[in-house]
Amino acid sequence: MAKQGGEVILLDFWASLYGMRVRIALAEKGIHYEYREEDLGSKSQLLLKSNPVHKKIPVLIHNGKPVSESSIIVEYIDEVWNDKAPLFPSDPYAKAQAKFWADFIDKTLYQIGRNLYSTKGEEHEAARKEFISCLQLLEGELGDKPYFGGESFGYLDVSLIPFYSWFQAFETYGNMIIEHECPKLIAWGKRCIQNKESVSNTLPESEKVLGLIQRLRKRFGIDE
Amino acid sequence: MAKQGGEVILLDFWASLYGMRVRIALAEKGIHYEYREEDLGSKSQLLLKSNPVHKKIPVLIHNGKPVSESSIIVEYIDEVWNDKAPLFPSDPYAKAQAKFWADFIDKTLYQIGRNLYSTKGEEHEAARKEFISCLQLLEGELGDKPYFGGESFGYLDVSLIPFYSWFQAFETYGNMIIEHECPKLIAWGKRCIQNKESVSNTLPESEKVLGLIQRLRKRFGIDE
Repeated sequence: MAKQGGEVILLDFWASLYGMRVRIALAEKGIHYEYREEDLGSKSQLLLKSNPVHKKIPVLIHNGKPVSESSIIVEYIDEVWNDKAPLFPSDPYAKAQAKFWADFIDKTLYQIGRNLYSTKGEEHEAARKEFISCLQLLEGELGDKPYFGGESFGYLDVSLIPFYSWFQAFETYGNMIIEHECPKLIAWGKRCIQNKESVSNTLPESEKVLGLIQRLRKRFGIDE
Repeated sequence: MAKQGGEVILLDFWASLYGMRVRIALAEKGIHYEYREEDLGSKSQLLLKSNPVHKKIPVLIHNGKPVSESSIIVEYIDEVWNDKAPLFPSDPYAKAQAKFWADFIDKTLYQIGRNLYSTKGEEHEAARKEFISCLQLLEGELGDKPYFGGESFGYLDVSLIPFYSWFQAFETYGNMIIEHECPKLIAWGKRCIQNKESVSNTLPESEKVLGLIQRLRKRFGIDE
């Protein structure tokens, strides 16, 4: 049986939208762990051995046993460290809805966000429109609640909040002001930063993310 | 709170690999439900209203509330009807592993399988190799256990077994004999059919699937 405590290691990369989810979940639960930054251009043997199928971060290694895929890791953390800060509501329907929207983020928002800074012309214009549509759907799901989890910060908040640290980069390369389109989502992002140390201590500075994207664009040949 | 019982409706399409998962989970739990076959060329208003984001089957409607995405539906079923045939092990690590492989099937096997019958030339040859590699990874995960869930049929068995009904079509258009590459996987498929009425009553005849794929290939312009 997987038990609380023991050795916890996280293989991650500072700007990873998926890795941040795991760091926030670990912080919410107050779990001590060893953070190991991966060089994605030259991955460690431990990463390749721990996630031989996808060879991707984040990987959580708990007492020598690796768990991969951020959503699965966050669910694992919530289940093993179940005495504090539950990330899911107890109602199975509300739980299914939180999972649906987290899955929506993984299936759509991530790739479309990437297209905002890695494409040009028509493809870029399509990404711009799609990106706003996705955010508006999420804004609709949030509604007037303080958090996606209702009164408390939960699984879907954990899944989406990392994107907030990339918003400046998305705005810069998407030629948009997200607050004009989705004011409630921006208010939610500020609320998370202000009220949740797990978030404010995890999210990188927007300028640092922007710098990374600038370097990526040069590598992709989008900018000179 | 979501409760057992009440009205259960499933919007589905007979050949859907994802829909079959839900039908098998419902059968495992002995849940009575109304099956509604969708015409995917002309989707019902109920489907469009129930899954406005993706507009895809399967959708489970439980007491008027829709749940979408097969993995999420199966988890929902397991949680609400939790008095019978548990689909997950109680150990969180084993549970995370089952979810990892189900996610692997969704991210890789589904699309590669589709490429087997919808592409030509180099792309087809790449799909052939990738398809076998994926199945071999799954065969490795199965090992010498009777089921992916160990001694009992579980979540990962539910996630993968629908593909068994498509194997003849994959073999026909992939120019391969899966049993030569993955004998344990074929033995597992036969075992599921033989021992689990939930499976034998759900999976369509291989010939009927093959007929569907033949029609799809004509529509894609692969065959005349």
